[in-house]
Amino acid sequence: MIPNQPIGASELIITDKGCIYHLDVHPDEIAPTIITVGDPGRVATVSKYFDRIETKKAHREFVTHTGYIGNKRLSVVSTGIGPDNIDITLNELDALVNIDFNTRLAKEEHTSLEIVRMGTSGALQADIPVDTLVVSTFGIGLDNLLHYYNYEENAEVSFIRNAFVQHTALENAAIKPYMAEASIHLVNKFPAREGYVHGITVTCPGFYAPQGRQLRLAPAFPNLIDALSGFTSGQHRITNFEMETSAIYGLGKLLGHQCLSISTIVANRQNKTFSNDGAASVENLIKTSLELLVQ
Amino acid sequence: MIPNQPIGASELIITDKGCIYHLDVHPDEIAPTIITVGDPGRVATVSKYFDRIETKKAHREFVTHTGYIGNKRLSVVSTGIGPDNIDITLNELDALVNIDFNTRLAKEEHTSLEIVRMGTSGALQADIPVDTLVVSTFGIGLDNLLHYYNYEENAEVSFIRNAFVQHTALENAAIKPYMAEASIHLVNKFPAREGYVHGITVTCPGFYAPQGRQLRLAPAFPNLIDALSGFTSGQHRITNFEMETSAIYGLGKLLGHQCLSISTIVANRQNKTFSNDGAASVENLIKTSLELLVQ
Repeated sequence: MIPNQPIGASELIITDKGCIYHLDVHPDEIAPTIITVGDPGRVATVSKYFDRIETKKAHREFVTHTGYIGNKRLSVVSTGIGPDNIDITLNELDALVNIDFNTRLAKEEHTSLEIVRMGTSGALQADIPVDTLVVSTFGIGLDNLLHYYNYEENAEVSFIRNAFVQHTALENAAIKPYMAEASIHLVNKFPAREGYVHGITVTCPGFYAPQGRQLRLAPAFPNLIDALSGFTSGQHRITNFEMETSAIYGLGKLLGHQCLSISTIVANRQNKTFSNDGAASVENLIKTSLELLVQ
Repeated sequence: MIPNQPIGASELIITDKGCIYHLDVHPDEIAPTIITVGDPGRVATVSKYFDRIETKKAHREFVTHTGYIGNKRLSVVSTGIGPDNIDITLNELDALVNIDFNTRLAKEEHTSLEIVRMGTSGALQADIPVDTLVVSTFGIGLDNLLHYYNYEENAEVSFIRNAFVQHTALENAAIKPYMAEASIHLVNKFPAREGYVHGITVTCPGFYAPQGRQLRLAPAFPNLIDALSGFTSGQHRITNFEMETSAIYGLGKLLGHQCLSISTIVANRQNKTFSNDGAASVENLIKTSLELLVQ
């Protein structure tokens, strides 16, 4: 859908310097391949592998470095935590390439970005040890971001999501999960023979009760983790959960981008084990996955 | 509810230095009065009014400064954007004062924190000009965070929320709003005679479609802003929307803290007007509200 009139100043907010509002990035400063990380401090952990850095920008939790590995131009962008931050990041990355900032009209030629999340995650299966690299074939959203868009699942996704809702007994709950798939093109770049485990990832809109944790407050769904671990649909099972994948996959699909989420497992919630060195685990994720991505 | 066994290492994550996981703050480093801001860069904008700063910590989007204004000890903490970040911040602030990090048991004596959000917001009423200071009497959550907790509204709140769901025609939607109230004690510190406008604040789980904005994607609820602006229940109306208030009020109530959200209006979504100087607007919010808070 291409709007036929300029997008208003209250919708598309462009700064005095011609940058998009939250990311504070100019259309010239973003590459067609984008790595997202949650932690602003992790952007430099990725960009240190770049042969050359062109630009560095930082605003709030959104840090962006753009540069090259060989001839491939890449950006690494920190999104901050959670689906609401993904709403900001995905819409603004898309605007940078698919909206003309002078006319405020969608460009006639669509640019499809490659967007690869490299993040941390908790495993939900006993056979996935800490420090494993997991590729999310699908994202199931326990947040509600995609309900604000005219999002429609395809038949396969709808079938799996309905089975998931039944299995987790959420039919009558106030939580209404949605589901979206990864880019198959990108999934295939990170195959099992390279050590990547494939599976469904669940996205949670918080870290404590939404991930079944209890400090002083009991979660409303105390059996959530076991319900997630026990779910299967055909050959699909839930490997892990984290806080951004479903939103990246859902918005990415609506906006016509190729998206993938790769996680390194820092905790196994079934075995109650933790990575001995989370920083090394993240470093391995980045180094290994960057090599396959730029091939 | 006081757990009668130590909270596990996978639930309450304490770093090698004895700090809570995401905030990276030690129990000694947090004051009983806490100001929250969204933007990590805004923490220093608050703490520059402190007479003395004791500690500065920073991890991801969570920056914490603790110090004094006169004899009053205060902390200012950046939460990052959105309800999922509030899940992390509120649970971890509570853990710092109400859980013994040595025994991993809830303390027998409960400490109630004062938590005051100072943020930016969009007005939803034509008669609330930009740069107005708005005190949120209630937060209506269009996110779904509180559904993961055993949260129950009181009768007044339930009545208003039901009227809101009817008015906005959300009865059969996948969005299930929840609602919570401010601390009356704190609301009364920021009265109309000091220039504060009081009203209901709506919390959105995103910045684009969840706030009725359209770039390339149409929102699923295109009439959302008008529906919010047109809602009244008794003397209550919706003054503004933003991205954290409902989660702070809901979790704060469950955890037994006194919470308030104050916003400076940087945009009026009815008049399509914007603050000429957002930074000055934020500065005025902080200076004016700090004075009343420490009185």
